[in-house]
Amino acid sequence: MDFEILLKQIDFIKEIDKVKYIQRKTKLFNSNRNENDAEHSWHLAMMALILAEHANEPIDVLKVVKMVLIHDIVEIDAGDTFIYDMQKNHVNTDQERLAANRIFGLLPQEQSKEFIAVWEEFEAGLTPEAKFARTMDRLEPLLQNTSNNGGTWKEFDVDYSKVFEKKKIINEGSTMIWKYAEELINESVEKGILRKD
Amino acid sequence: MDFEILLKQIDFIKEIDKVKYIQRKTKLFNSNRNENDAEHSWHLAMMALILAEHANEPIDVLKVVKMVLIHDIVEIDAGDTFIYDMQKNHVNTDQERLAANRIFGLLPQEQSKEFIAVWEEFEAGLTPEAKFARTMDRLEPLLQNTSNNGGTWKEFDVDYSKVFEKKKIINEGSTMIWKYAEELINESVEKGILRKD
Repeated sequence: MDFEILLKQIDFIKEIDKVKYIQRKTKLFNSNRNENDAEHSWHLAMMALILAEHANEPIDVLKVVKMVLIHDIVEIDAGDTFIYDMQKNHVNTDQERLAANRIFGLLPQEQSKEFIAVWEEFEAGLTPEAKFARTMDRLEPLLQNTSNNGGTWKEFDVDYSKVFEKKKIINEGSTMIWKYAEELINESVEKGILRKD
Repeated sequence: MDFEILLKQIDFIKEIDKVKYIQRKTKLFNSNRNENDAEHSWHLAMMALILAEHANEPIDVLKVVKMVLIHDIVEIDAGDTFIYDMQKNHVNTDQERLAANRIFGLLPQEQSKEFIAVWEEFEAGLTPEAKFARTMDRLEPLLQNTSNNGGTWKEFDVDYSKVFEKKKIINEGSTMIWKYAEELINESVEKGILRKD
């Protein structure tokens, strides 16, 4: 029985290898190479471990790490949605929920339920853990774009107001990190790598 | 003062982006593309979350996840050592310790000490968490090589006895997973993708 459980888990572990092929719009730091979802998720998990002390509220760090490690697994079926894509609203699409059910559904039943719940909690963004996980998810591309002379902001002509609108949610997870992020955004305008009309 | 702490942490977060450029010998599942250390570390962290119940002893899952997320960061300076490289012994080389001190040394002092200690604990391989983390680290390439028609075993002419010798340490972290791994190794010999003279 335990062995059957293990075999299901191994099937899931093999399936999620596909996360390594999902390209994001953002590039690695000081680079022209696109980041993939596995690299992105690893980086967010490291950031969560390192920056946890700056959370506005007490957080269960293991849960935050789980959230950021799994948050893009649904993209195996649903694909990556660019955050500044105004045609496609990235709020828990039906396609993503179907993907969550199929992919986490490979796991043994209890574990499947647990991971779907963690993913739903991240997407809802209401708990202290989900807020902090989203803070990480918004901070990484900000660091990347500022290191890449504007990165996706320049490439897709995204201006200050759109960036500010998407990034201000960082404040919900950490006022301290938002203070830093806001400075970075303002500096980017001053440097001419982010357009403000 | 808190802001200075944050700035040091951001420096570390930028530095470890380099992990995404470190190529391993092993390839992704059913693929010819080499895996990099960030992808590998993400996959091990996922495996630790999924497989924790099979550990031989009670484990602190967050600590195991920390170990696997950071275990290859020293390779930014020290480079990847192939496990079957008989010229170069991969046991805590001086070069790796220097790398740990430099890279984790970018963090605020307390955090730097903590991460170096976690890395040392993983390398020593003596605690239940370190044993389970190593079980993950040995299992992933086994799954990859069996999915890749022999993978690095064929490419570098590694035979059954060498594989068995390196993989049996899986048993220290999980007897259940070792039972599965041993079956995989034996099946590989039967299929002719692992040489046994």
